[in-house]
Amino acid sequence: MKKRIKEIPGSIVAPKGFSASGVFCEIKKLGTGKGSNKGLKRDLALIVSETPATVAGMFTTNQVCAAPVKVCVERVKKGTAQVVVVNSGNANACTGRQGMADAREMVSFTERALNLPTGSALVGSTGRIGVPMPMDNVCAGIIEAATLLGSTAEHAANAVEAIMTSDTKPKQIAVEFKLGGKTVRIGGMCKGAGMIQPGMSPTGARPATLPHGGLHATMLGFITTDAVIDAKVLQAALNEAVAHSFNRITVDGDMSTNDTVLVLANGLAGNEKLKTKNSKLKTFQSALHHVCLELAKKIVRDGEGVHRVVTVRVNGAKTVQDADAAARAVANSALIKTSWHGGDPNWGRIIDAIGYSPAKVVEEKIDIGYSANDSTKILWSLKRGQPTSATFKELCAAVAPKEFELHINLNLAKANAVMYAADLTEEYVDFNKGDVTDASSLGG
Amino acid sequence: MKKRIKEIPGSIVAPKGFSASGVFCEIKKLGTGKGSNKGLKRDLALIVSETPATVAGMFTTNQVCAAPVKVCVERVKKGTAQVVVVNSGNANACTGRQGMADAREMVSFTERALNLPTGSALVGSTGRIGVPMPMDNVCAGIIEAATLLGSTAEHAANAVEAIMTSDTKPKQIAVEFKLGGKTVRIGGMCKGAGMIQPGMSPTGARPATLPHGGLHATMLGFITTDAVIDAKVLQAALNEAVAHSFNRITVDGDMSTNDTVLVLANGLAGNEKLKTKNSKLKTFQSALHHVCLELAKKIVRDGEGVHRVVTVRVNGAKTVQDADAAARAVANSALIKTSWHGGDPNWGRIIDAIGYSPAKVVEEKIDIGYSANDSTKILWSLKRGQPTSATFKELCAAVAPKEFELHINLNLAKANAVMYAADLTEEYVDFNKGDVTDASSLGG
Repeated sequence: MKKRIKEIPGSIVAPKGFSASGVFCEIKKLGTGKGSNKGLKRDLALIVSETPATVAGMFTTNQVCAAPVKVCVERVKKGTAQVVVVNSGNANACTGRQGMADAREMVSFTERALNLPTGSALVGSTGRIGVPMPMDNVCAGIIEAATLLGSTAEHAANAVEAIMTSDTKPKQIAVEFKLGGKTVRIGGMCKGAGMIQPGMSPTGARPATLPHGGLHATMLGFITTDAVIDAKVLQAALNEAVAHSFNRITVDGDMSTNDTVLVLANGLAGNEKLKTKNSKLKTFQSALHHVCLELAKKIVRDGEGVHRVVTVRVNGAKTVQDADAAARAVANSALIKTSWHGGDPNWGRIIDAIGYSPAKVVEEKIDIGYSANDSTKILWSLKRGQPTSATFKELCAAVAPKEFELHINLNLAKANAVMYAADLTEEYVDFNKGDVTDASSLGG
Repeated sequence: MKKRIKEIPGSIVAPKGFSASGVFCEIKKLGTGKGSNKGLKRDLALIVSETPATVAGMFTTNQVCAAPVKVCVERVKKGTAQVVVVNSGNANACTGRQGMADAREMVSFTERALNLPTGSALVGSTGRIGVPMPMDNVCAGIIEAATLLGSTAEHAANAVEAIMTSDTKPKQIAVEFKLGGKTVRIGGMCKGAGMIQPGMSPTGARPATLPHGGLHATMLGFITTDAVIDAKVLQAALNEAVAHSFNRITVDGDMSTNDTVLVLANGLAGNEKLKTKNSKLKTFQSALHHVCLELAKKIVRDGEGVHRVVTVRVNGAKTVQDADAAARAVANSALIKTSWHGGDPNWGRIIDAIGYSPAKVVEEKIDIGYSANDSTKILWSLKRGQPTSATFKELCAAVAPKEFELHINLNLAKANAVMYAADLTEEYVDFNKGDVTDASSLGG
């Protein structure tokens, strides 16, 4: 992060003109499977800008895509919005025509409750799959949430609690920076935990060429800013930021039906409008990237059953697609993830996964090593395909911390990729094996 | 299996003219990581035909490929061999030039020990990665094994024990059938347990077009037959049999550096030579397919920590590649595999994985259901993307058995694929998280 961008306390209500609320309207009570944290109460949040905001979004490329995602894709295209309504406890996915009608009613009802024009509201949902949305509860929640809006830390805390499912911690951030003398802020909150390996695009459509290994959480991310910025420029900035943050994380390799990131920019900072080639854009991009990356890492750290977080860096690949493929093969290998859990610096499993990945590799050129986070001091376990003189004890020490970096150099060319990955633990299995005494675990 | 093919007691020594032995030469003792079963002693096997045999092989397409695989690929091309030497405890993978020299010495030494001409021996290895082969032990083992050859069930049992690593059970089979009045037999043995999702080809080379999802055990399979068969026809028959058996299984989605299947056909049954378009070939193919499929399923059932085995059948895909991609996405999803462990008929996770797979799918057309193994009576949980009236209790009952079938119909066209898959359990994680008090767990 550039020095001129500083983290400040706060969340989505840190930028000027944003308010939020979070209420309990019994969506979770009605729909709580084992995937929801039964200790949590709130399940519906509103994020509101006092003026119409420029908007951008990124959406799951899963072909099985929830109704709220479909509604947002349509609405984000228009480039403006003023409120986001989000619920947890029910994903409104695989709910057919009724699901689409319910998602549309959620935005319409929110607009009416806040006395805003049609088209002002966006919607996000997370929770059980395949269960009709309890619309009476949702509407009662929206009415209550509309009366409770405010801009204090408590308001933000209520909102973030309302979007959590199996998350054990709220995930929030805010940053501040100057653009031409004006103070600009970006705030954000997100939820994650399981079904996490997002692969999002601006329209939810897949790229013409799938990257090697395919595209692969329910993760929801909501970002607010008071920057003045053109809608297309905001979308381009979000594409770039998500490509290097939310789309680079994996907990379990499963991509959800509901992954969504939305940014609202209400322009109340009063800076000169950010446009392409505008010299200020770099600073904004850098700040947005920081917000997305920190939120993304919080998702991995708080992933279901996660004990260790490993940054997998692949360098020296022939193409970016190859670097990405090798990094994802390693980041999603059951054998490697279990060895991370055990604190075992097993390079045999790592070179094995690199070898079966779709990336072009040459065994005799592969280097594998470890470092502390963000350190350039790498302890190599393998050089050019052969074990180094590093001792087992030294290697164990390198993989003992709660977070470390794994460095893989293919030594073929210059392309690189990074993945933020998690270990695989007995707790993950226990949490996700389901509770067959509970019919509510059917979907999601 | 056709009625004229019958299973008989026995293994690799069931066909005429084959003998085997298995000895303990302390390769495991020297190299035992947690991945090896410390209770087992034997670690080197010989399989010998009394006459030169026609040979065919299939080898891992992992780009990081063990020395014994490289040696076999070269030798199988010649189409004949007479002996296979196999060790467990050391994979001879990532062992550089010394590893290649050691693999070559293993075949040469075996040929000299048995007084056979150069080019008669093939080699297989499984165990730790990245550790030099203890050649003194190996050579002593070969000498001893050569003196202990025989064709009883005990000889076969010693041989299969010698190829086991984390396997808890020996895996053997034999079948008998008639070809033009002559009795022909096929016998086989294999090992598996972890790092299991083989993707083998006749030369270890990848196909020009990677299937969606890439190619994906250490698994070793050795098959013997007394059939008279042309080498190219035998290779073609093996390609076909492996494509529908060993290459359709997954325990943990990891493809090993050492996967190998070898078939030796010594011709002592005296049948009319099997050639392309020979009417007898269908019966042989069907028998070979049965042997490979039964051995492959035994690998899944005895996979590390496996409690449940699920046959994933995808029908109605646009292409075979799509059917394969959807089946592999489901078969390797951490969330789905944990729900199988829990006996949870969670269709939400299944439709999610189908949606993120590279296969072309349409949510509103997807059917998901369950049946008993090999039963046509399917209990549908989802039809055309929407829940059926099947109750949660009924669905739980369908996924309660140790083995069941999952049916997915994409309803787009007619292509289909099947995967034999395993659940993901706490035991798998515990077993593979490594034992960091044990330096021998570094590789493999």
